[in-house]
Amino acid sequence: MFEHRKGLQFEVKVERPDPMLARQIQEVLGGQFGEMSVMMQYLFQGWNCRGEEKYKDMLMAIGTEEIGHVEMLCSLISQLLDGATPSAQDEAAKNPTMAAIMGGVNPQHLIVSGLGATPKDSNGVPWNAGYIIASGNLLADFRANLNAESQGRLQVARLYHMTSDEGVRKVFRKMLARDRYHQYQWMAAIKELEEKKGVVVPASFTPEDELEAQPHAYEFYNLEEGNGAKNGLWAEGMAPDGTGEFVFLDNPEPMGQAPKPAVPPTSLHNDIDMP
Amino acid sequence: MFEHRKGLQFEVKVERPDPMLARQIQEVLGGQFGEMSVMMQYLFQGWNCRGEEKYKDMLMAIGTEEIGHVEMLCSLISQLLDGATPSAQDEAAKNPTMAAIMGGVNPQHLIVSGLGATPKDSNGVPWNAGYIIASGNLLADFRANLNAESQGRLQVARLYHMTSDEGVRKVFRKMLARDRYHQYQWMAAIKELEEKKGVVVPASFTPEDELEAQPHAYEFYNLEEGNGAKNGLWAEGMAPDGTGEFVFLDNPEPMGQAPKPAVPPTSLHNDIDMP
Amino acid sequence: MFEHRKGLQFEVKVERPDPMLARQIQEVLGGQFGEMSVMMQYLFQGWNCRGEEKYKDMLMAIGTEEIGHVEMLCSLISQLLDGATPSAQDEAAKNPTMAAIMGGVNPQHLIVSGLGATPKDSNGVPWNAGYIIASGNLLADFRANLNAESQGRLQVARLYHMTSDEGVRKVFRKMLARDRYHQYQWMAAIKELEEKKGVVVPASFTPEDELEAQPHAYEFYNLEEGNGAKNGLWAEGMAPDGTGEFVFLDNPEPMGQAPKPAVPPTSLHNDIDMP
Amino acid sequence: MFEHRKGLQFEVKVERPDPMLARQIQEVLGGQFGEMSVMMQYLFQGWNCRGEEKYKDMLMAIGTEEIGHVEMLCSLISQLLDGATPSAQDEAAKNPTMAAIMGGVNPQHLIVSGLGATPKDSNGVPWNAGYIIASGNLLADFRANLNAESQGRLQVARLYHMTSDEGVRKVFRKMLARDRYHQYQWMAAIKELEEKKGVVVPASFTPEDELEAQPHAYEFYNLEEGNGAKNGLWAEGMAPDGTGEFVFLDNPEPMGQAPKPAVPPTSLHNDIDMP
Amino acid sequence: MFEHRKGLQFEVKVERPDPMLARQIQEVLGGQFGEMSVMMQYLFQGWNCRGEEKYKDMLMAIGTEEIGHVEMLCSLISQLLDGATPSAQDEAAKNPTMAAIMGGVNPQHLIVSGLGATPKDSNGVPWNAGYIIASGNLLADFRANLNAESQGRLQVARLYHMTSDEGVRKVFRKMLARDRYHQYQWMAAIKELEEKKGVVVPASFTPEDELEAQPHAYEFYNLEEGNGAKNGLWAEGMAPDGTGEFVFLDNPEPMGQAPKPAVPPTSLHNDIDMP
Amino acid sequence: MFEHRKGLQFEVKVERPDPMLARQIQEVLGGQFGEMSVMMQYLFQGWNCRGEEKYKDMLMAIGTEEIGHVEMLCSLISQLLDGATPSAQDEAAKNPTMAAIMGGVNPQHLIVSGLGATPKDSNGVPWNAGYIIASGNLLADFRANLNAESQGRLQVARLYHMTSDEGVRKVFRKMLARDRYHQYQWMAAIKELEEKKGVVVPASFTPEDELEAQPHAYEFYNLEEGNGAKNGLWAEGMAPDGTGEFVFLDNPEPMGQAPKPAVPPTSLHNDIDMP
Repeated sequence: MFEHRKGLQFEVKVERPDPMLARQIQEVLGGQFGEMSVMMQYLFQGWNCRGEEKYKDMLMAIGTEEIGHVEMLCSLISQLLDGATPSAQDEAAKNPTMAAIMGGVNPQHLIVSGLGATPKDSNGVPWNAGYIIASGNLLADFRANLNAESQGRLQVARLYHMTSDEGVRKVFRKMLARDRYHQYQWMAAIKELEEKKGVVVPASFTPEDELEAQPHAYEFYNLEEGNGAKNGLWAEGMAPDGTGEFVFLDNPEPMGQAPKPAVPPTSLHNDIDMP
Repeated sequence: MFEHRKGLQFEVKVERPDPMLARQIQEVLGGQFGEMSVMMQYLFQGWNCRGEEKYKDMLMAIGTEEIGHVEMLCSLISQLLDGATPSAQDEAAKNPTMAAIMGGVNPQHLIVSGLGATPKDSNGVPWNAGYIIASGNLLADFRANLNAESQGRLQVARLYHMTSDEGVRKVFRKMLARDRYHQYQWMAAIKELEEKKGVVVPASFTPEDELEAQPHAYEFYNLEEGNGAKNGLWAEGMAPDGTGEFVFLDNPEPMGQAPKPAVPPTSLHNDIDMP
Repeated sequence: MFEHRKGLQFEVKVERPDPMLARQIQEVLGGQFGEMSVMMQYLFQGWNCRGEEKYKDMLMAIGTEEIGHVEMLCSLISQLLDGATPSAQDEAAKNPTMAAIMGGVNPQHLIVSGLGATPKDSNGVPWNAGYIIASGNLLADFRANLNAESQGRLQVARLYHMTSDEGVRKVFRKMLARDRYHQYQWMAAIKELEEKKGVVVPASFTPEDELEAQPHAYEFYNLEEGNGAKNGLWAEGMAPDGTGEFVFLDNPEPMGQAPKPAVPPTSLHNDIDMP
Repeated sequence: MFEHRKGLQFEVKVERPDPMLARQIQEVLGGQFGEMSVMMQYLFQGWNCRGEEKYKDMLMAIGTEEIGHVEMLCSLISQLLDGATPSAQDEAAKNPTMAAIMGGVNPQHLIVSGLGATPKDSNGVPWNAGYIIASGNLLADFRANLNAESQGRLQVARLYHMTSDEGVRKVFRKMLARDRYHQYQWMAAIKELEEKKGVVVPASFTPEDELEAQPHAYEFYNLEEGNGAKNGLWAEGMAPDGTGEFVFLDNPEPMGQAPKPAVPPTSLHNDIDMP
Repeated sequence: MFEHRKGLQFEVKVERPDPMLARQIQEVLGGQFGEMSVMMQYLFQGWNCRGEEKYKDMLMAIGTEEIGHVEMLCSLISQLLDGATPSAQDEAAKNPTMAAIMGGVNPQHLIVSGLGATPKDSNGVPWNAGYIIASGNLLADFRANLNAESQGRLQVARLYHMTSDEGVRKVFRKMLARDRYHQYQWMAAIKELEEKKGVVVPASFTPEDELEAQPHAYEFYNLEEGNGAKNGLWAEGMAPDGTGEFVFLDNPEPMGQAPKPAVPPTSLHNDIDMP
Repeated sequence: MFEHRKGLQFEVKVERPDPMLARQIQEVLGGQFGEMSVMMQYLFQGWNCRGEEKYKDMLMAIGTEEIGHVEMLCSLISQLLDGATPSAQDEAAKNPTMAAIMGGVNPQHLIVSGLGATPKDSNGVPWNAGYIIASGNLLADFRANLNAESQGRLQVARLYHMTSDEGVRKVFRKMLARDRYHQYQWMAAIKELEEKKGVVVPASFTPEDELEAQPHAYEFYNLEEGNGAKNGLWAEGMAPDGTGEFVFLDNPEPMGQAPKPAVPPTSLHNDIDMP
């Protein structure tokens, strides 16, 4: 069960409205790696968590924090939209700067939400649950989380330069710091799990279980022209878990057959002749 | 530019058709973490790659390999569908086992693709590009890739137990080994980049750039009841990059205001009274 | 079966082209509450209607009218796009007003539809059937319809102010009047059904059927800080159907357990330790 | 900002696992009118709320409650999936009942989520934000909410009969009671707003503003064969707000022109001849 | 403007309910090439049609017919669902045949639509407007239409064998005949347009306009191993419009450079080193 | 299995950056008929191909070519984005031309992809597999392919006029020539198959199989007002395969009943009264 406090996690006070920026910030609210994604991803991971309870507690704490981040961004976007109106743009367009802004505004901020944030990205594509993951395997999922916080911080860092509004930038700095903490958090949690289980997901399907396929777990197939990819930690030396040595295969050949599928029954109406 | 070889990467020869399994395997072909996703993700990362060329070469090599994995799974699914027909199920349903299989089959394998694999997941949801990421920041993206290979191997490991068909299992073992290698590969590449730049993405937005917000980069906000999350590497000790010490905040208070948005102009027709 | 008349329901004659407005009007054609939505919603409700026939007749009449509204908007959008061309924008952009318009135009109106309306919203997101509902329960669905007409009229009212083109505004006034009628229509139909069955959907699952849970049907759980929500018709007095008195619960406590899910079998590879 | 309590809102304790039911219950978790929809709808309406504060407080309270409903359903689904395994179904299928269950199970509960709930509907379609609305006009939105609770309660009532598990039914009864309260709540709030503003949304675009189009706000266009729809409150008598009398138009004629769009410039390559 | 007649285009009378078949038939109602697609595709092509009027008239006639096909399929699906109930499936499942049917049923037919057809495909994926096309170029679009009718008739032909219900088959035969006519119709219309303009779309971008690139319009690039594709009308002889001779290029080499993109500015935070 | 060559198929060298054009070109990369669509469509048709092998070889060759087209467009878009930065647009906006460009740029090119192409259309809608088709019936699919190349060439032709950059136009001319070849290719392949099987898809469901419905395969139902559609090859004369004569039915009447669906069981809670 949840409870709501009236105050935002951090103060949000913009210097001046900027509807084009409002549209752009939608990306980190309702985009693939926006706050809605981390909120729903951590909550679902927490709700579905089985086993040792401290991970569930940790997931619920951060998932709950992220609901508040969505809230904070809604407030930021509302303030940036303050005062925008649908007033006759054909008139306004006689002023080119005005017209330009019109062109960059998300029309749904006026027509659909009445100056509210929308659960969509910077191009107006609705958020969908295909963005998130909760697999039941914590190591896999913490890697998903580290990725999400990396992509998220990167996007906020880029947005930071899109405005000179110090009020907006202050909110972004808070978000950048939190995203930094959350990167640390998942790194730390990953380290803990890798030390217990090993670095390969899932640990319970062991190299030995791969039987005759084991050697393929150390081969780089160079299907690229040249061999520029040879000089990397992935192409020479020991695998991170010390179970084998990497091999750089320069001209890999197909090991399988050329497929010859059967001709299907007439009731499928593929209209195929025997070759 | 690309070229195609006729042979599959690995041999694919199933022991017997199994249309229900064919449907389930669609998940690792056209699902969120199926082979279509890694194929498109690595290719787009490679095509968009700027800077040091060896990373681009590596991405193109693995992206090109993954096109072949999609190919291999299409062949596997075709074989599992071999011989399936749309013949009157109301008759067939008098045999309960037959009826049960009917119920578990993907109807589109009969009606839409005529016994071919579809670019969709195990529930028939079409693959979409919202699953993939290519951000221009290699460390961020390699983390996305490590996650993708972790989720992917996990799903194949689960599918492994759904069948006793040794031909299918042999293909899965190959995929499990390759997914293991690909996890190693991204770990190695991540290590290389972290050593160059540091562990936080993006490195070019430094802790110092966060100004007054810096301290928030070390705080765990315990918005969960109890303090079960206190005993983890994320809540005590030094941050992974040694820039600060973690703090566990037990009862965090809102630091921001309760928002009081302005009343919008009448032309928005929100019909709001002044409070 | 349907028949088509050549004339539009109302006259559509714009004063001058305006491609940016054309893009914005797409919202009320192919957006969540655009004419495509009410058209498909009423038709599906009509086609699926079982029971008393006058409701089916009414639904078919209005659904058929709405096909004509989609038609009318297509005509409106075509006229607003008249004369637009894909001619070299890099040249045109030397004129800032021209450039601004370019920026606000939907590129698909040029590249994809060749100056035709598209079945998409103002941001180019394709219409999808997840917007509509036909549940088989008429009272539930008429409430959906009253909502759709309310959202729809609101959006047209906002669009009204985006142009000073009297030809466009005349079409909008017709739509505003029809949306007003359609709000009346659903209110009237809702009243009729509520008088027959009661106000709670579905009526056939009665308060008594809720057994021990009945009291929870009158409680406001104040999970918000403060008690600002106390002064409303929802927090005090009798329920609308007179079956009970509302209770404002200020500090509601969880009534359920903290979940302790079982550890799943190894074949799921969740890699979970017993806690 | 939000906080999380460990206990569920209501107790969730199923009598026995039932993976097919788990799949079906996904509808009211991640479907169009599932708990994710009301949760996100109320939260966004609350966050975007401008004007009189008691409505915002009320929205935040119920939005916060709904997060807990998602949580409760996740717990319910987890319990129904307990013990399910991906063990060789080709073996299991020799037992027809077993096979049948296999066919009705959501494969993603095994392959993707490892026995966890997914943010998707009963057919595995991911939840998306196109389901929800927050328009800035409270009367419009409360009508959306009344609809959502009507559809939601209807779906739970139908699910109620799909199982004889008394533990599951107990949870459903709680949900049915809450959905009943929430219907009351929106009815009450709607009544309050209608009394202030009038019944037509938006009130600020008045009948007078519709100018010459006003009469069309009282006409039923009978585009359906016969006149079965004549005997309803929508076709005769006074409009709900007393501003006019309804008219039943039996054979409505088009009032607009047959459109004659201009031929576009050659650079659009429509390859059109002058007629 | 449109009008509705009460009678269906053809009689629909099934012999017995069959909810699994009802689910499968959804494919040709709300799938990629279902009746909703052709209905919306022809209507949008008609509404957007510019130039010679007989094509618009033809498109409107067939588009209007297709609305009636959606109607007919809704009626068919309703009848196949008649009598289905959500009654306790855990009880029913003791009968394996019953259980099997349960597993193959679309749960939304019970939970969401109350025995009505849904605007979705056979796997429950909502119809979306990304399926359809109206480009403004009639020859291009008539090719889209010929494809749609080909795919559509193929799917109905496959469905035909899924049932022995003579009532259902009778409806399918009507649809197969109409789809045959519609294939003729588009072939005839295509022939008419090709004779006027030539076979390449768009005709107004002529071979001469391609300048130095013209030769590439006759080359088959054999990027496949072997030369199995050499023996086809596409690899030897004259192009269909007689403008050139085909060339089979056996080992095509890249004609472009290996891309070397510039390193982006630091404000994008790609963290890239100069190579 | 596939291999990658470093060189692009054709040279890509733009004269100057143009981020607005970059956004527009996304349409032919990741839109409904962009290169991603033909790439995936041909590859899936090739992988699923059963029967005579030369068609499979041909599909694989062209599918492999199309991967290279996606690559080429990514390179083109990268170059057009070169040098774009997220630098404070509120400052830049003081220059109206600058502001205008800002408004027309895809914000995701800055925030999400860091100057890389995205797998999305010109409005930022992600590519999805609902765009493509591989039915198992080659004639049906080659018609889909002819349509795809027609729509694709049309879109490139329109884009051609949006820029005066000779470097970009040179790439487009290459694409226009290839799309012309690919139209020839599918025409030739269609001709070959039609000569073998006949023009109606699927050939294996013959006119005779349609039994009593046969006559309906020659009737034009004129559900449009007037008879403007009478003068076309589809309304008079012989069907393309000479099996019958077309009939123009001026005032077609419904041949089916007005549906009277049964009232469903109470457990569905439709709350329907017997009429």
